[in-house]
This record gives sequence, C-alpha cells and structure tokens, in this order.
Amino acid sequence: MHAISQYQEIIKTHFEELQTVKEPKNLYEPIQYILSLGGKRMRPVLTLMTSEIFDVSYEKALHAATAIEVFHNFSLIHDDIMDDAPLRRGNQTVHEKWDLNTGILSGDAMLILAYQFFENYQPHIFQELAKLFSKTALEVCEGQQYDVDFETRDDVTIPEYLKMIEYKTAVLVGAAMKMGAIVAETSEENANLIYDFGLNLGIAFQLQDDYLDAFGDPKTFGKQVGGDIIENKKTYLYLKALEFSNKDEEEQLQHLFSIQPNDNTDKIASVKTIFNSSGASKATQDAIKEYTMKAFETLKIMSISEDKKLILRMFGEKLMNRSV
Amino acid sequence: MHAISQYQEIIKTHFEELQTVKEPKNLYEPIQYILSLGGKRMRPVLTLMTSEIFDVSYEKALHAATAIEVFHNFSLIHDDIMDDAPLRRGNQTVHEKWDLNTGILSGDAMLILAYQFFENYQPHIFQELAKLFSKTALEVCEGQQYDVDFETRDDVTIPEYLKMIEYKTAVLVGAAMKMGAIVAETSEENANLIYDFGLNLGIAFQLQDDYLDAFGDPKTFGKQVGGDIIENKKTYLYLKALEFSNKDEEEQLQHLFSIQPNDNTDKIASVKTIFNSSGASKATQDAIKEYTMKAFETLKIMSISEDKKLILRMFGEKLMNRSV
Repeated sequence: MHAISQYQEIIKTHFEELQTVKEPKNLYEPIQYILSLGGKRMRPVLTLMTSEIFDVSYEKALHAATAIEVFHNFSLIHDDIMDDAPLRRGNQTVHEKWDLNTGILSGDAMLILAYQFFENYQPHIFQELAKLFSKTALEVCEGQQYDVDFETRDDVTIPEYLKMIEYKTAVLVGAAMKMGAIVAETSEENANLIYDFGLNLGIAFQLQDDYLDAFGDPKTFGKQVGGDIIENKKTYLYLKALEFSNKDEEEQLQHLFSIQPNDNTDKIASVKTIFNSSGASKATQDAIKEYTMKAFETLKIMSISEDKKLILRMFGEKLMNRSV
Repeated sequence: MHAISQYQEIIKTHFEELQTVKEPKNLYEPIQYILSLGGKRMRPVLTLMTSEIFDVSYEKALHAATAIEVFHNFSLIHDDIMDDAPLRRGNQTVHEKWDLNTGILSGDAMLILAYQFFENYQPHIFQELAKLFSKTALEVCEGQQYDVDFETRDDVTIPEYLKMIEYKTAVLVGAAMKMGAIVAETSEENANLIYDFGLNLGIAFQLQDDYLDAFGDPKTFGKQVGGDIIENKKTYLYLKALEFSNKDEEEQLQHLFSIQPNDNTDKIASVKTIFNSSGASKATQDAIKEYTMKAFETLKIMSISEDKKLILRMFGEKLMNRSV
C-alpha cells in the first residue's frame, strides 16, 4: 500500500507519459489540455488504492484508473458547456479556450477513449469493467439531467435530491473503487461492498460540499464561500431548511432564493442564519455522519485484514474531516 | 437471407419494441424522438445481412445492429449542433426541439447506450465488438474534426479529403458489416475482408453523394441539388476541378466558392460547367467505379458460397446505381 500523495504522484506521472501528439490536433489538444490541469485526482487514486486493498499491485489497476479519470474529465468539459462556466481549476474551460464545437467533439472522443483503456484487460475482466462503466456513466448523465431539471422546479424532495447527488457524483466514486476490486479479482461480495463503501462516502462527501459551501472556512475552502446561496442553488441545506420552516419562514427563504442582488453579503448572512435557526445545518451534519457511518458499516463484513479496514477507515475520516 | 426491405422492417419493429419510457424524461424522450425519425437504417441492415452471409441468423446480430444505429443517431445529434442544422429527416433537430444542453446530454447517453447493447454477448465477442466499436467511433470523431478543419483551410489535398470521408462515413459501414461477421464467429480473414468491402463501398457511396449533389435528378435526390455548391463545400468534385485547372480557371472557381449570392441559379450553373469542362465530373465517376471495384475485389478471396458473393455484389450495385 501507498499513501494518497504517492498514488497521486503515480497518476500524475502516468498521465504525463500518456500525453502524445495525435492528429487531428484540434481534437486531441483540448484533451491534453484538460487532463494537464490536474486536480486532486481522487477517483483514480481510489482505483489504485482499492486494488492494493485486495492485495494486487496498483500497476494492474492503472488502465482502469486512467479510464475513470478520462471519463471524469469528459463530464467536466460537457458540464462546463451546459453551465456556461468560464473557468475550470483556475484555467479557461475548453469551450472558452477553443469553442463550443471543440468542447462537444473532444468530450465525445474522451468518452470513447475511456472505454479503450479497458482493452488492456482480458475478456472477462474487460466485460466486467465496461459493464460497470456503462452503467455508471449513464447514471452520471441521468444525475446531470436531474440537476438541470431541478433548477426550474420548486417541488424537489429530499429523496430526489439525494438520488441526484448519488447519480451525479457518488456512483463514480463507488465505481472507481469497484474497478480496483474487479482488476484484483476479489470476490463479488467484496467488490459490491467496496462499491457501497465508495457510494456512501461519495454521498457524504457531496453533502459536506453543500455544507462547506455555506459554512466552510474562506481561507481553506477552494471555492467562493456562499457560492451556492448566490446562485440560488437548491442544496440539501436549503431543502432541509424549507422542510423545517413554518409558512412565514418558508416565504422568507423562497424570497431570498429568488433575488440576485449586486452585493450578496446581506443575503448570504440572512440565509445562513435561517440554515442554522431552522435546524437545517444540524440535519445536514447528521446526514453527513449517517452516510459516513453507512460506508464504515460495509467494512465490518468485508473479507480483508483488520489493517486494510483501518486504512480504508482512515482514508474516509481524512476525506470527511477535510476543510477544503 | 432476407431482402433489404425485410431487414428494414425487422429493424423498425425492433426499435419500436425498444421504446420504453424511462426517467429522467428530459434525457430519454429526445433519444426516443431521434430514433423514431427512422431513415433508411442502412447500417443496421448491413449488420443483420452480414451475419446471414456468414450463415448465422440475423437474430443473433440484432443487438450489435442496434448499437450501430444508436451510435449513428448519437453522431447525428451532436453533428447537427455543430452544423447548427434546424432539420433532420424533415423534422426539427433535437437541439432545436429542446435545447443545446439536451442535445449534448442525450447524445452522450446514446453513446453509452450503444456500448450497453454489446453486453448481450459473451465476453470474447463482447470485447471484439466493443474494441471495433471504440476504434470506429473515435475515427468518426476524427473525421468530423477534419471536416470542420477543412472549412477554414484552402490547401486541402485529395488524399486528405479521402481520409476525411473514410473516417467520417465509411469506417462505420465497414464496422457495421464486420460486427455481423464477429457475431457469426466467422474466420478473422473473412471478417477483415467484409470490413474492406464495406469500407470501400462506403467511400464510393460518399463520393457518389458528392457527385449527385451537383448532378443528381432533383426529382429523386433527397436533398437540394446544388446544396454543396451553395455552401461552398470543398467536395471531391471541387478539389479535382482545382487540380485540373489552369491559373485562370482556378481563380474563377475560387471566386465562385467565395460568394454567397441571393439567387444561386447562375453560380450553380457556372460551377457545374467547370466541373464538367475540367474533367472533374469524369474523374469523380472514375473514382466511384474504382472504389466500388475495390469492394468487389475483396469478394474474390472471401470464403463464402458463390451465391452469397452474388448477393453482396448485387447489394453493392443496387446501392451504387441509386438515384437518391
């Protein structure tokens, strides 16, 4: 086993070695560009780590890890088009740096390239990986569609919201880990348990992202604190606050989430006050704990050494105690 | 074996049965919509026909044929966005009927769905199909990128143009046929020969499309005759005419391909005169014949009955003597 930072270094080196100049340049340069922007590369790290949890060298999992990261970056390119986002990881988004058509087509190519990395495995492993990948990729599309749909709906329920973040974010975390298990050829039961571990941790992580967006430390949180409030985004905090509100408070919150003032300072403060007074903050923290615990529960019945369980648990705790 | 019209009917029925209402509706309704628009469905027909050429019932090839058609329609949705096309098969394009984001996301989902149809096959066939599919799909993206690049280049060569139409169009015809061969588990040699048959026929077909766009019968050609000339599209006819022209003729042609008059009647007539006088028309017809013959050559060394060879040849002739 290695430390997270070591796996990150391995992935970084691997992606640098992958970089090849191919024709047509206008198709492949944007791909090189987005992959070179880096990021924490948590998903491929999880694939490498999981293969070693099941006693197989990370090297065997490198192609699957690459597929996961290439897919993730495909989804970033297309999502950035849909969100009309100018920046990604502090750099221009692909459709800004090039144009819309380049963003669409380079993204398409990346989705195909992701599948090609599985070709390095034997037929039965190839099929298992590709099946899990297709199922997951489709769920990510469905999650993105729900997210888009929710923007114009005012009757989103908590279970619907949880399903959206599960599909949009958590299934890929689960799949990243399960791929490590598939490559390691562990038991189907272990593979499913590690998927559930990743899935629940992924949900907890996304809920924490909602929480930190409002209550995170501006010095360490990567994004603008209050960003979701400024954008009137219906997060878990917002939906819970509505649920716990009486008619008056509900109207006040809905009003605050309909305005777009030039200076957001007062709006952010008012909303945060309601998030706290309504009990939504507490409920969100409880949900984060609940999903984290659910992830840890799967470890109990997993057939791996106690040391390995501790490593997974420590990873989960590290992830959930993040301030970024 | 069945007649083309019978295979078309089988595909039609199969797609009608596939139609299921799935959530989220905004993701799946556009998919149902584009698939219901129909078209000639030549690619999946070729997959079914090829499996029967190699003595295996078309039924075994239905899933692969479905994948090919779903992929083709994915590429239509994304290409229509890139071309800003309002109509597809006489109906609104997906991004027109819905919006840009829907076009992108539903297209992405279709690309993934295409892969999922291969899951109906055993691991070694699954892997062969998925590998061929990924290679082909990536080439289609590359072909589309070359096509986009050529719009703003004035030094496109004939070999470059041929490579573009090979990637953008012909490889999918070759792959559609090879998938029928893979499903039928014929020899690798037969599978590669039928790929070459489809590839060369696909190039011949696209060159004929260029030819008919200028010289087709307005009564039977599906699209507007002269459409490529109106759009100043650098087709095989145009590139050959440039090649055969002296300096004066070259300048005249380049001038004609730089203007966009309100009434195109004179422009179309002038360009067609040059296409004929320069020998470009004759050269295009020669090239169509050459690639058709190249396709037929592969039949000579294919290990199938003479009757089956005749069926493939008749299909090729029928396709190339089309007036639409």
